[in-house]
Amino acid sequence: MELQHLISKMQSGDRRALSRCISLVENSTSDALEILKQIHIRSDVPVIGITGPPGAGKSTLANALIASLKEFKPGCRIAVLAVDPTSPFTQGAILGDRVRMSDHFNDPDVYIRSLATRGVLGGLSARTLEITDVLKSAGFDFILVETVGVGQSEIEIAALADVTLVVLVPEAGDEIQTLKSGVMEIADIFVVNKADREGADIFEKNLRNMLHEKPGTSKAVPVFATIATRHEGLKELLAAVADYFHPEKIQKDLLRQRALQILMHQLWNSVDTAPFLKQFEQARQQPGFNLYRFADQWLKTRGGV
Amino acid sequence: MELQHLISKMQSGDRRALSRCISLVENSTSDALEILKQIHIRSDVPVIGITGPPGAGKSTLANALIASLKEFKPGCRIAVLAVDPTSPFTQGAILGDRVRMSDHFNDPDVYIRSLATRGVLGGLSARTLEITDVLKSAGFDFILVETVGVGQSEIEIAALADVTLVVLVPEAGDEIQTLKSGVMEIADIFVVNKADREGADIFEKNLRNMLHEKPGTSKAVPVFATIATRHEGLKELLAAVADYFHPEKIQKDLLRQRALQILMHQLWNSVDTAPFLKQFEQARQQPGFNLYRFADQWLKTRGGV
Repeated sequence: MELQHLISKMQSGDRRALSRCISLVENSTSDALEILKQIHIRSDVPVIGITGPPGAGKSTLANALIASLKEFKPGCRIAVLAVDPTSPFTQGAILGDRVRMSDHFNDPDVYIRSLATRGVLGGLSARTLEITDVLKSAGFDFILVETVGVGQSEIEIAALADVTLVVLVPEAGDEIQTLKSGVMEIADIFVVNKADREGADIFEKNLRNMLHEKPGTSKAVPVFATIATRHEGLKELLAAVADYFHPEKIQKDLLRQRALQILMHQLWNSVDTAPFLKQFEQARQQPGFNLYRFADQWLKTRGGV
Repeated sequence: MELQHLISKMQSGDRRALSRCISLVENSTSDALEILKQIHIRSDVPVIGITGPPGAGKSTLANALIASLKEFKPGCRIAVLAVDPTSPFTQGAILGDRVRMSDHFNDPDVYIRSLATRGVLGGLSARTLEITDVLKSAGFDFILVETVGVGQSEIEIAALADVTLVVLVPEAGDEIQTLKSGVMEIADIFVVNKADREGADIFEKNLRNMLHEKPGTSKAVPVFATIATRHEGLKELLAAVADYFHPEKIQKDLLRQRALQILMHQLWNSVDTAPFLKQFEQARQQPGFNLYRFADQWLKTRGGV
C-alpha cells in the first residue's frame, strides 16, 4: 500500500492501517520517519501512564479505568499500549494482559496493543514515544500506557505521560522503604490497589506520611485506594486524573524532555553502525585499544572532516 | 589537580582520585571523555551483574559474594557499583545499601559506590558503562554492579556485565509468570535467595521447570538456592559465577552492544541541545507544528549543509 494512502486511512480511524503504521514505526523501517513527519499529531490527547511493580494489578486497573473513561466521555475512543520487554517468554505475559483487559477486547472503540522493548539500544523510550504520537493522530480521545517495572522504564513513562499513576499493593511497611528510591518521585497520583487486602489501611497511612516528607513540594501527591477487580474507588481516581486533561497543564519541562528524546532517536537512527562495528572488530584486537578514543575518532572522521 | 596527575593517581590505586574521576565521568564534565580516552581499561576484569526485584536481597547477596570472592582469590580488590534512580528520596535507600554491605564498608580492598540514575536522557546505561570502565583501569580484580528493578535497567545490566545473576525470592507461583516477561531472558544464573522461606522448594522447582521450556537453548540456565544473610549456598554459586571469569567467554555480541552504546553516548554528548530547545520553544507554538519534521530539519542544517 502506498504510504500516503496508509497514513490517511490510519488518520481516518482504520484499525488495520493503524496496526500497520505502528509496526512500521516499531520496527524502525525506512518508512517510520516519513510516517511521523507526515501525520497530524494532536496535542490535546491526554496520555495516562500506569506503572508499578509486577503483580500490583496495573492491567486490571487499566481495564477498570477504560470503563470509567467511557462513562466520563460517552462514545470516546481509547488506545492502550502495554509495554513488555522483548522475550521468547513474552507470549504468556502478553496473553495474560489481554485476558485481564478482556472486558474491552472486542470493543471497537478500544484499541489494545502490546509492545516489546528491544534491548539496550532501543528500549521503552526508543519507540513508545513515537508510537504514542501515531496514536495521537489516529482519532483517540485517551491513551493509556502501561509498563511494568521499577527503574528506568518508569522514568521514561513519566516523560511520556501527561499524568503518571503509580500502582502499589499493600505490603509490609518495609516495602515502602525500598520503593522510595524507585518510583516515588515520578508519581502524579498514587493508587493503592487491592485495598481489601489485610494491612491496606496501614500501608496507605504509611504512604501518606512518607509523602509528607517529600522535600521541596508544597502539595502532597494524592493517594487513592482502589479494588480494580470490582471497579471500586475508580470514580474518585478518575476525577483526579481528569484534572490533568488540559493541554495547558502539561509541563514545559516535559515537552522539552520529549523533544530531546525524539532528537536523540533521530540522531542515532542517522548513524550507519555497520562500518563502525566492522572497524571495531579489527581495532579491538590491537594492544592498548581504547574504545573511547576509537569512537571519538570514528565520529570525527565519519563526515570526511 | 591536573587531569593527567589525577588519572595516574587513580590508576595506581588512590581511592580519592578514583572517587574524583568517577564523579567527573558521572556528571559528564568536559573532562569525562578525556579521562576515558586516556585510561588503560583492562579487558580481563570480570563484571558481575546482580539484579532482581526490590526486596530480593541483592545487597545482602553482594555482601556475601564479596566475602566469597576474598576467599576465592586472597588479597583481591573488589569494586561495587550500586545503581539507584535519582531522587530526593534516595538518601535512605543508599544508606540502606551501605548498612547491608557493612561487613566490607571499612575494608581497604573493597570500594563501594552508589550511583544515581539521571532521568530520561542519562539513565543507567548513560554512565554506568563508562564508570565500570574507569573501575577496570583502577586495579580492581572484580566489579559487582547491583541494580534494582524489573525492566529496562536489567536489559542494560546484561550488556554491562559479563555474568548476570537474577535474584528472586520464593513467592507464590503466580509471581513467576509475571517475572517471565521481565528478567528471564537476561539471566546467566538464577539465585533463589531467602531459601529458608516457606515455599522455597516449590518455587525453585517451578522455576527450573519453566526454564526447561525456554526455547532455542540447549542448556538450561542454572538455579542456585542461597540464604545470603547466613552465607549459605555461596560456595556453589561462586563456582558457577567463576566459570565466566575468562575474557574468551565474553560474547562477541556483548562487546558490540557495549561499543554501540558508547558510540551513542559520545554522539549524543557532541550535540549542543540549547539552541535546539530554544528554536523548539518558538516553533511549537505554530499551527501544524510537527516535532519529527522539525528535528529532522534541525539535524540536517546544524552542520551548515
